[in-house]
Amino acid sequence: MSFLNGATVGIDTVNNKAVFIDQTLLPTEYKEVFTDNFQEIFDAIKLLKVRGAPAIGVFTAISLAVLMNKSSAEAYEELLAELKKYAGDLILCRPTAVNLKWAAEEMLKTAENSNSENFKKSLTEKALKMIEDDISICHKIGEYGAEILKNCNSVLTHCNAGRLATVKYGTALSPVYVAKENGHNIKVYADETRPLLQGARLTASELCEAGVDTTVICDNMASFIMKNGLVQAVLVGCDRVALNGDTANKIGTSGVAILAKHYNIPFYVCMPFSTFDKNVKTGDDIVIEMRDGDEIGEMWYEKPMLPENAKTLNPAFDVTDHSLITAFITEKGVITPDEIEKFI
Amino acid sequence: MSFLNGATVGIDTVNNKAVFIDQTLLPTEYKEVFTDNFQEIFDAIKLLKVRGAPAIGVFTAISLAVLMNKSSAEAYEELLAELKKYAGDLILCRPTAVNLKWAAEEMLKTAENSNSENFKKSLTEKALKMIEDDISICHKIGEYGAEILKNCNSVLTHCNAGRLATVKYGTALSPVYVAKENGHNIKVYADETRPLLQGARLTASELCEAGVDTTVICDNMASFIMKNGLVQAVLVGCDRVALNGDTANKIGTSGVAILAKHYNIPFYVCMPFSTFDKNVKTGDDIVIEMRDGDEIGEMWYEKPMLPENAKTLNPAFDVTDHSLITAFITEKGVITPDEIEKFI
Repeated sequence: MSFLNGATVGIDTVNNKAVFIDQTLLPTEYKEVFTDNFQEIFDAIKLLKVRGAPAIGVFTAISLAVLMNKSSAEAYEELLAELKKYAGDLILCRPTAVNLKWAAEEMLKTAENSNSENFKKSLTEKALKMIEDDISICHKIGEYGAEILKNCNSVLTHCNAGRLATVKYGTALSPVYVAKENGHNIKVYADETRPLLQGARLTASELCEAGVDTTVICDNMASFIMKNGLVQAVLVGCDRVALNGDTANKIGTSGVAILAKHYNIPFYVCMPFSTFDKNVKTGDDIVIEMRDGDEIGEMWYEKPMLPENAKTLNPAFDVTDHSLITAFITEKGVITPDEIEKFI
Repeated sequence: MSFLNGATVGIDTVNNKAVFIDQTLLPTEYKEVFTDNFQEIFDAIKLLKVRGAPAIGVFTAISLAVLMNKSSAEAYEELLAELKKYAGDLILCRPTAVNLKWAAEEMLKTAENSNSENFKKSLTEKALKMIEDDISICHKIGEYGAEILKNCNSVLTHCNAGRLATVKYGTALSPVYVAKENGHNIKVYADETRPLLQGARLTASELCEAGVDTTVICDNMASFIMKNGLVQAVLVGCDRVALNGDTANKIGTSGVAILAKHYNIPFYVCMPFSTFDKNVKTGDDIVIEMRDGDEIGEMWYEKPMLPENAKTLNPAFDVTDHSLITAFITEKGVITPDEIEKFI
């Protein structure tokens, strides 16, 4: 039995529990966790059981509502102090995740506009509203995308920008889910996405669970797939888009975009409109996180796959040049790179 | 102590042993195996302890010489019958490896031109000659390549076309080794090369052992490496080249070639001249081997990385279009795609 029913996080208002899929157990086990325990919530975010910026944000709001519903405090000041303590502690567990901080602040604002009588109720309502908004934005992205894909049989995607990174639908995969709702079954080829294998572990898991025909390939097989006409479009998500359209996303995205250009296959970036970053002019201004080389040579394996004195380089993201991007699919519509400034 | 001293296979003429590096133990263990036992030799080829077409060929010749040196037979006909039996059995262990059959036939021809007195000696001499020829061809490739790379600091390579696939030097890596002999230290970025990880396990092992500065990356990081100016050339080996220059090589090679073209980085294919296949006009005529999907979702891992109902596609090779290839580096010189027919 599934409580979440296709969502990644949720709130069980009857029993007052925050609910999430433990993504660290995928693909071998699908488990929904119900909790009102602060430490368990903290660990869920810290240990990437819940991941993906939008999902983390909404889960933070849900968690704060659930934690406060348990509170024995009665006075407004006491309630507010307790909320601030929880919010401050949660923000610490992944300090760079903007959505986490944003969601915590939204909940604090809501509390500040409430009183001792409607304090708990207003937080729960706000969390439910944030769930709704996230679903609505993603669905809208899916509607625009499904329209673009109406003549496509198959698409290629990289990494995971599916519902497991949001509440439901996702960004890059939303067009596939919405098309399916409309009776149009699009096949998906998923890059496994080394070194963390989000494509194999997460994208394939959520697509297969949703009944989408899914084929996983190694990242180096994308050229073969395109050359043989197996996909008619590429869909990816993104972490940040500069004003000129240069786009930061999971490592490997720029390579897929270059291949797509070579083979004349349209390349779409799907994301909430808020991902356009007014403060970043071009991709050159985006700092790339470099991660530990053990992810390449040791993680997942039974024994090390590299000799001891080999070096590694492990950039977590790359920047795709705007000239390689056909369009951005957002909840506000489909925007080409040269239209960004006008839309903002 | 190393008997092979930088070679992959060899013959210990003092103790009459065939010698090889057990490549299945790499990268965690470097082990030279000395043997005159037929079953051990058979298993070495069958179980990929010795792999790479040229290396398999030469190792077959070495093994037949060693096995016959132990023979108690005295009459010419008896000796020849024994050799034929060994050769016939070895050919069976990897029936599609052309070099294995070729080497066995070379040894039979040698035996047919000998007599009972010089039978054993002529086989040993032939095996030593085949070792020499392989080294000489690869070194010549390295000389031409080193000249081309004289202004390069770093190159990118894909899969393993190094000495572990030949007797010594290799094809794609020979220019790096020869440059090093000349005092020019070129750094190498090695694609890990999913799913079989030949880049991580083999290329990195042999380069590190030779003291070459080696950095392993995931296949999807090649675009990042090129964009950031970290390599000035790409060197790969190949399995077969059509008359128009279309080149079959390890899966992912065509993607690397497209990226190199995008970033204006020269892309070189290094191989013995015999790899040009007169019987194949274009890449469309080359059949691509499709391998088991377990290599993508299960091999090497502690637990499966794919959900049960995900499909996979696992082409072992792809074809790089001739328009993406700067030149072929062979023992007969550097040849552009449009010069192939003239050279043949």
